[in-house]
Amino acid sequence: MSLKVVIIGGGSSYTPEIIEGFIERYERVPISEIVLVDIEAGAKKLAIVEALSKRMIEKSGYPIHVRSSFNRQHALENADFVTTQIRVGGLEAREKDERIPLEHGLVGQETNGAGGIFKAFRTIPVLLEIADDIHRICPQAWMINFTNPAGIVTEALLHHSLHKKVIGVCNIPFNMKTGIAEMFSCPVEQVEIEFMGMNHFVFGKRVFIRGEDRTNEALAKLTADNVHYSPANIVSLGWSKEFVRALQLLPNPYHMYYFQTEDVLKRDLAAFKEHGTRAQIVKQVEESLFVTYENPALAEKPKELEQRGGAYYSEAACNLVESLYTNKQDIQTVNTRNNGSIRDLPDDAVVEINAVITKEGPRPLAVGNIPLQVKGIISQMKAFEQLVIKASLSGDYDDAYNALVMNPLVADEKKATAILDKLLEAHKDHLPQFYRKGVVSQ
Amino acid sequence: MSLKVVIIGGGSSYTPEIIEGFIERYERVPISEIVLVDIEAGAKKLAIVEALSKRMIEKSGYPIHVRSSFNRQHALENADFVTTQIRVGGLEAREKDERIPLEHGLVGQETNGAGGIFKAFRTIPVLLEIADDIHRICPQAWMINFTNPAGIVTEALLHHSLHKKVIGVCNIPFNMKTGIAEMFSCPVEQVEIEFMGMNHFVFGKRVFIRGEDRTNEALAKLTADNVHYSPANIVSLGWSKEFVRALQLLPNPYHMYYFQTEDVLKRDLAAFKEHGTRAQIVKQVEESLFVTYENPALAEKPKELEQRGGAYYSEAACNLVESLYTNKQDIQTVNTRNNGSIRDLPDDAVVEINAVITKEGPRPLAVGNIPLQVKGIISQMKAFEQLVIKASLSGDYDDAYNALVMNPLVADEKKATAILDKLLEAHKDHLPQFYRKGVVSQ
Amino acid sequence: MSLKVVIIGGGSSYTPEIIEGFIERYERVPISEIVLVDIEAGAKKLAIVEALSKRMIEKSGYPIHVRSSFNRQHALENADFVTTQIRVGGLEAREKDERIPLEHGLVGQETNGAGGIFKAFRTIPVLLEIADDIHRICPQAWMINFTNPAGIVTEALLHHSLHKKVIGVCNIPFNMKTGIAEMFSCPVEQVEIEFMGMNHFVFGKRVFIRGEDRTNEALAKLTADNVHYSPANIVSLGWSKEFVRALQLLPNPYHMYYFQTEDVLKRDLAAFKEHGTRAQIVKQVEESLFVTYENPALAEKPKELEQRGGAYYSEAACNLVESLYTNKQDIQTVNTRNNGSIRDLPDDAVVEINAVITKEGPRPLAVGNIPLQVKGIISQMKAFEQLVIKASLSGDYDDAYNALVMNPLVADEKKATAILDKLLEAHKDHLPQFYRKGVVSQ
Amino acid sequence: MSLKVVIIGGGSSYTPEIIEGFIERYERVPISEIVLVDIEAGAKKLAIVEALSKRMIEKSGYPIHVRSSFNRQHALENADFVTTQIRVGGLEAREKDERIPLEHGLVGQETNGAGGIFKAFRTIPVLLEIADDIHRICPQAWMINFTNPAGIVTEALLHHSLHKKVIGVCNIPFNMKTGIAEMFSCPVEQVEIEFMGMNHFVFGKRVFIRGEDRTNEALAKLTADNVHYSPANIVSLGWSKEFVRALQLLPNPYHMYYFQTEDVLKRDLAAFKEHGTRAQIVKQVEESLFVTYENPALAEKPKELEQRGGAYYSEAACNLVESLYTNKQDIQTVNTRNNGSIRDLPDDAVVEINAVITKEGPRPLAVGNIPLQVKGIISQMKAFEQLVIKASLSGDYDDAYNALVMNPLVADEKKATAILDKLLEAHKDHLPQFYRKGVVSQ
Repeated sequence: MSLKVVIIGGGSSYTPEIIEGFIERYERVPISEIVLVDIEAGAKKLAIVEALSKRMIEKSGYPIHVRSSFNRQHALENADFVTTQIRVGGLEAREKDERIPLEHGLVGQETNGAGGIFKAFRTIPVLLEIADDIHRICPQAWMINFTNPAGIVTEALLHHSLHKKVIGVCNIPFNMKTGIAEMFSCPVEQVEIEFMGMNHFVFGKRVFIRGEDRTNEALAKLTADNVHYSPANIVSLGWSKEFVRALQLLPNPYHMYYFQTEDVLKRDLAAFKEHGTRAQIVKQVEESLFVTYENPALAEKPKELEQRGGAYYSEAACNLVESLYTNKQDIQTVNTRNNGSIRDLPDDAVVEINAVITKEGPRPLAVGNIPLQVKGIISQMKAFEQLVIKASLSGDYDDAYNALVMNPLVADEKKATAILDKLLEAHKDHLPQFYRKGVVSQ
Repeated sequence: MSLKVVIIGGGSSYTPEIIEGFIERYERVPISEIVLVDIEAGAKKLAIVEALSKRMIEKSGYPIHVRSSFNRQHALENADFVTTQIRVGGLEAREKDERIPLEHGLVGQETNGAGGIFKAFRTIPVLLEIADDIHRICPQAWMINFTNPAGIVTEALLHHSLHKKVIGVCNIPFNMKTGIAEMFSCPVEQVEIEFMGMNHFVFGKRVFIRGEDRTNEALAKLTADNVHYSPANIVSLGWSKEFVRALQLLPNPYHMYYFQTEDVLKRDLAAFKEHGTRAQIVKQVEESLFVTYENPALAEKPKELEQRGGAYYSEAACNLVESLYTNKQDIQTVNTRNNGSIRDLPDDAVVEINAVITKEGPRPLAVGNIPLQVKGIISQMKAFEQLVIKASLSGDYDDAYNALVMNPLVADEKKATAILDKLLEAHKDHLPQFYRKGVVSQ
Repeated sequence: MSLKVVIIGGGSSYTPEIIEGFIERYERVPISEIVLVDIEAGAKKLAIVEALSKRMIEKSGYPIHVRSSFNRQHALENADFVTTQIRVGGLEAREKDERIPLEHGLVGQETNGAGGIFKAFRTIPVLLEIADDIHRICPQAWMINFTNPAGIVTEALLHHSLHKKVIGVCNIPFNMKTGIAEMFSCPVEQVEIEFMGMNHFVFGKRVFIRGEDRTNEALAKLTADNVHYSPANIVSLGWSKEFVRALQLLPNPYHMYYFQTEDVLKRDLAAFKEHGTRAQIVKQVEESLFVTYENPALAEKPKELEQRGGAYYSEAACNLVESLYTNKQDIQTVNTRNNGSIRDLPDDAVVEINAVITKEGPRPLAVGNIPLQVKGIISQMKAFEQLVIKASLSGDYDDAYNALVMNPLVADEKKATAILDKLLEAHKDHLPQFYRKGVVSQ
Repeated sequence: MSLKVVIIGGGSSYTPEIIEGFIERYERVPISEIVLVDIEAGAKKLAIVEALSKRMIEKSGYPIHVRSSFNRQHALENADFVTTQIRVGGLEAREKDERIPLEHGLVGQETNGAGGIFKAFRTIPVLLEIADDIHRICPQAWMINFTNPAGIVTEALLHHSLHKKVIGVCNIPFNMKTGIAEMFSCPVEQVEIEFMGMNHFVFGKRVFIRGEDRTNEALAKLTADNVHYSPANIVSLGWSKEFVRALQLLPNPYHMYYFQTEDVLKRDLAAFKEHGTRAQIVKQVEESLFVTYENPALAEKPKELEQRGGAYYSEAACNLVESLYTNKQDIQTVNTRNNGSIRDLPDDAVVEINAVITKEGPRPLAVGNIPLQVKGIISQMKAFEQLVIKASLSGDYDDAYNALVMNPLVADEKKATAILDKLLEAHKDHLPQFYRKGVVSQ
């Protein structure tokens, strides 16, 4: 059997990483065709990535055929796996998501707070169209999404698309395992973390080294050694001993937005004044990356890519493809239907959880009840996510308002109005659902 | 049959209101004996209230015998109803609950945020002792608690005391109904609000006038008319049209702490600088009230009492006594075991809910699922309440830390430590559970 | 305001009882128009009932206008209350429901076992049409159903019709209260039973006399005094002391089918041999009743009607109408959406439960968890009911098979097939959903 | 590291199988010591098994030390794994469990109906003592129970013993996989069945061959080929096409007691008349087995053992030991805490479920909701199991009555009394909890 992979958002700077992943796994996952799909506005980047990918594969010697396409429907024919890594509105939109909240004294971040909400509003309708295409054209294909906010997006797809073979992935769980491996000076393969929660709001409940529960030790090391396991694009402010000891859980780097809000905001505002938004910095990094990619002598994933925040996203995606294809039944951390695995969340909620990966998809491992200390905040974040999805689809002003006012990083009835109005206006071109009659209906 | 009522905290300035309530209901609720119980430190106030109560009853002509006592156990013998309205540590403690958070830039309030948490820490162990006494000495008696935080306290009692005949009451639901009655220019008896949530975090889901659902009208009036239905001690900042329209629920005045945090804090800090804490103001009001009470010509509840924040607390308690005694089966809003009435909260959680009041206690009316827009925040507040109860009993530093850091008005890992240390030290004398070995164990 | 009532199945022998109920309540419930609706096949009975109803009203002196109609849609215009008491297929169909199971050695009864399942299959589609008519023509009207199986039917309507103002009633709860009143020699108004379960599978959890819990006494009297509180059409075999003592609950008469199956079957088979089915006996009773009704001198509900099994059905319906209209807020036992009131059953399941009856409908009183001893059997019966509803709508052979094989009175994989085939054939004319292609699809 | 295993009930005829299992796995599971523990009454059998075990190990050449002991506490010191395979009251008790119900016209079987209930009553208190010993003496040890009724027993242990490292195993799931492997002509290692339910009441929800969902095919083959996958001691009567097609699930052989009750009873009564109870037959088989075991030339598990009903029980236990020790993370079917994996059952219920076996124990794979067609019956059986556990510990007559009357194979209020009285009397010596005051208290 030979496999066909379609990469939606193929012009992304991350694509060389996923190409590398498929080359490394070729003996176990015999891919014969990869189609890089993008929109015409990204034609230049797509061409650069396509050329680099071809050089990488040529160097590998494997008979994988790579091509690019602007015609998504056509590309999807006979696909076995479809990955989605898109950015609706590009870095310009991200820049607004970050800047406008900061200008109102609120966290301005790509996947959290008001910025994350609007990223979801722009992204969900587009990914729903893609999922519906997949369901119609290649219903046998697995859709592997790593577009952020990955958890919310996956839940929207599973609830509102007929295509049910959808899995969301994120690099945070893998990065956390890498951090723990460093702490314990052991290979990352020997580390298991029992994850529980939602994407970017996941906690590590237990830490195992070679199968043995070493949670307490890990928690102690976390503050003692001041080990940093943050992904590259988030400079953690470190956690206090009191917080980690009382929580008895491994936080993830994004938790700083919720429990160090004031300090983070201060830092981000200072950085904003000095360097502009994170989007603007990323833009420069991207430009520089594409200069590197263009070098016809380059035939491998360049080192610089690893310093980009999303490193290992593709690793996670490739591992998933391998286990789905080979029925490997190993344990991976994915965003999938809860199905009872986290008792206190709805059955049909999407959670970030360890699952056995089989040919028929992920089967989550039951972790039981959420520990009381985070039960409340996790329940709130899940309900918030559902408000975001509701508004993404309804395009209703009040639904959007509820999502904002119930987000712990907004939580202010007047700021919610102010920022909602500004962001709706700023993203007007990418939010058709809110402008059905030309104006936002209130 | 003749009834005996014991009022724990009988020296409270609110006592004349409850005495008045019993006089008004005498024909239906034949009370023959009222014992006012207090601690010896409150001897002077107790004597003043006892004398005033006697004058009030003498004027009424009813054969009710009133006396005071420092001996709680003795007083409880043969009691039919026991009301509890105590303030562990007095207004001095309240002053600290309000001041210390404000000094850290956080909401400093008697029943919300850090202040409310410490009020619970001081109060729960004392009320548990009282409930255990009741269970031993007069197990047939109903314990009616209006000590704040009334919801948390009632849940602590129902979970940790053997005495299960405990009901918590608050004046907020009654005040909200009064506000609605004003809006609709009708008697308060014709108003029903379907309440759902927890004490001081309750929402009105539906508003009925003479049995007809008039919710939409009520929500519109709320912002249109700028009607204020806040209790006297909380000056509401008013709600925006956007908030009320999107929520589709009646908020209660205390919600301003959660959705207008910055404005409230600004206002409270200004007031604090000018007048000191609310506790200090209340202290003056109390002193002035007791001067009034001492007047031997006074034989009725003085008008001034109604301007005190807690007005109608006693009204709620007296209504409850009447319906319990007469098996009236009317609908009242109480704090009682959820028992499934709010589907998304645990069975054994205490909720503020409409219930039919029967001789055998309240039977809550099922309201089903919490609307999505507040499902998250209500779930979080309930989990937070459970963290408070856990820490109140364990006296464990980490448990207390979790309660603080998971409260939306704290929600900062470093401030939680700072404020916890300060408040533990400030309230040392009233928190023996945290000082078992002389120092707080960490 | 004047009210219009439509009685679907107006030619029923029970109609004089409901007419009497409306006359008695006229001062509180000013009905100006009653339309008796039936199908043309029932023209003769309808005419007799209409004439009797007119004589009864004339005698009362109240200005109520009665008329009959075969045109349901027309009759429904401007209706305020619609009652439904129909029998799809008439007593001939009932005769088959009773006879065929008995011939296979299984309980043959109108509302339990295979017979009850087929009654549901025939009835649900017809009542759904009626509910949809109501929703379209008189959406403000309450539909009060007492067609059996009343609980299953009400759930089917609430799940599958847009009309949500539907309440199911049954006379069993009222009859059980009457039985308890006899036991305690008190008026039935002083009795309250806390009901919990489903129609014809309801248990009494607690018994209150004048608000006091007298459950233990009631249970003791039940077997000690050998009191019979069965409805007229079910001759109870009595309960053993062991059963009642261990259960700690009040069973209802229909429970004999489940816990005295062998004895009941023996008795029913003997009666069947001697007198034929119950349907045949009822047919004779009906004929005799109608002879009585035809007497032009008769202007009141005849005594004989009370001996018919369904006595007090109409009483329950009239009480409901009164409380809905007057917002009486008294407690009645109805079939309504669970909404969390019985914790172990789904939210949207229909349960038989005590509810406060308001202008906006019933609000059930939360009873919490089902006692362990009946939790299993109640859960099973509810799941069984849902299988019945599923098959009623799908017309799928396998769905119908599942309903039969999972019913405790069938529970045999081979008998399920045999009896299913026989009953499908016997009721062919009234089960169009199973014969879409002319034959039953398997 | 070297491991110590204690086999409680070491004199069992099954022991040679488990010894063989440990020999086969020695390279991966280095056991250095095995202690066979039994009661003195079983001294003779214990000696025979010990001698055979020694010969088997000698032949293997591995340095495993085997010894026997009557002193359980002493034997448990430093144990790593403890298996429990006991029969309280021996085959004499089993004979009564089978005979007495049959004499009342009810299913008389070792693990189902009245017989299974009494087996639980006798077994649970003894196994609780053993678990408590383990917790005190070797708390690090895993207790692997294959004493029947294995699911009920495991739940009793997990709820009522402090020792939480308890796993229940059964051979039925393995046998069902073997049956499927035969159907698909593939090695059993390539078969996975998604199990869901409780021990002896488990269903196969999905069937996978090499990771691919082949459920529909398996269901079709089940009735088409008339394949028998029953364990040796249960001669299945076969399933009808209608049953399997409507259920859409793989039944297990014990389901015949519930859905073919009448036929099974007829067959068992006939066998009873001709050959006596199954216990009596087993007794002869056992005697013959022990004659074989005594042969000093025998140094391997004799073929005859495989024909005994419990074959593969030890296989399941040995697989479990291996995966627990090596952190193998393979999927096995075990009886363990539900923890949300089957949504409709309580968190703390013990279920039979697929789980990843890690060094820290089993982690069940979430299967979500129970399909509607068996949701009711599974819920009932779980509630029934909980009634059995309650009565096992309370020794209360009414609790025992509830367990009997709510079992679908009894379900008769009078028979429940008759059979309960008979069985309590018959098993008097092994039911001390019911005879605390010398007589059964009612």
